[in-house]
Amino acid sequence: MNDKLTIRPAHEADLPAMVAMLADDPLGAARESPDDLTPYLTAYRRIAGDPHQHLVVAVAPGTDRVIGTLQLTVIPGLSRRGATRTLIEAVRIHADARGSGLGTTLIEWAVEQSRTLGAELVQLTSDATRTDAHRFYERLGFSASHVGFKLVL
Amino acid sequence: MNDKLTIRPAHEADLPAMVAMLADDPLGAARESPDDLTPYLTAYRRIAGDPHQHLVVAVAPGTDRVIGTLQLTVIPGLSRRGATRTLIEAVRIHADARGSGLGTTLIEWAVEQSRTLGAELVQLTSDATRTDAHRFYERLGFSASHVGFKLVL
Repeated sequence: MNDKLTIRPAHEADLPAMVAMLADDPLGAARESPDDLTPYLTAYRRIAGDPHQHLVVAVAPGTDRVIGTLQLTVIPGLSRRGATRTLIEAVRIHADARGSGLGTTLIEWAVEQSRTLGAELVQLTSDATRTDAHRFYERLGFSASHVGFKLVL
Repeated sequence: MNDKLTIRPAHEADLPAMVAMLADDPLGAARESPDDLTPYLTAYRRIAGDPHQHLVVAVAPGTDRVIGTLQLTVIPGLSRRGATRTLIEAVRIHADARGSGLGTTLIEWAVEQSRTLGAELVQLTSDATRTDAHRFYERLGFSASHVGFKLVL
């Protein structure tokens, strides 16, 4: 196989596949509505209009099938001598592609992209119940140094 | 005292006070350089140029003394039916003002501002060693549901 995996900006046409991945998840199942894409389209346009958001999809080699996604946000800041950081959110891998190394490829892409964008720190949070994900991020060099707090409004 | 605490956007002239607060911290002491404001000024301008960043200071009643700061970032996203979230970073309270309730006032401001900006979720991470901060965020209704990972580039 000479074709390579492609990681590219997400298009509106990718939304059904992306939302299906968000919903096909133990935590996502209860909070997504894959049969009604309207709120996702509104959100997609908000993301696409913000130059500090990088919403991407991974496309299977030699196909146009979306098998992964993540969102990278660039956040300038004062702390750490004015360091810019990036935040990784909404990492999802299609069920068919789990265990294939795609998660590693996507996170390594996000880290490399963060360097290119001038970031000095990459951060993310992972639900405390996702223990497999925690080991995965630690293998990739991330340190579980923080507690992540959320408040639903 | 009829004067009230003011929370307002940070100005360039606030940088010395803000950087002093970042440095006057068990974790910040080693990673800030309050004697050289150049990198902070560059970062301040980057923040000020991004409409999704809200960097604010708290000013003591009846004075122009900066006694607190935080940064709020607005992040649109696809997950949770296209929910916009906010991220709180770089919360600092001047040593003279600790225990005064200012931390609560600042976080409550950030939560209210998040609602005004259309967010459905507020999130933040706190270093695992800051156990007092963890109790503080839980008292304010935040849930310590996540593990926060960082990778320094």
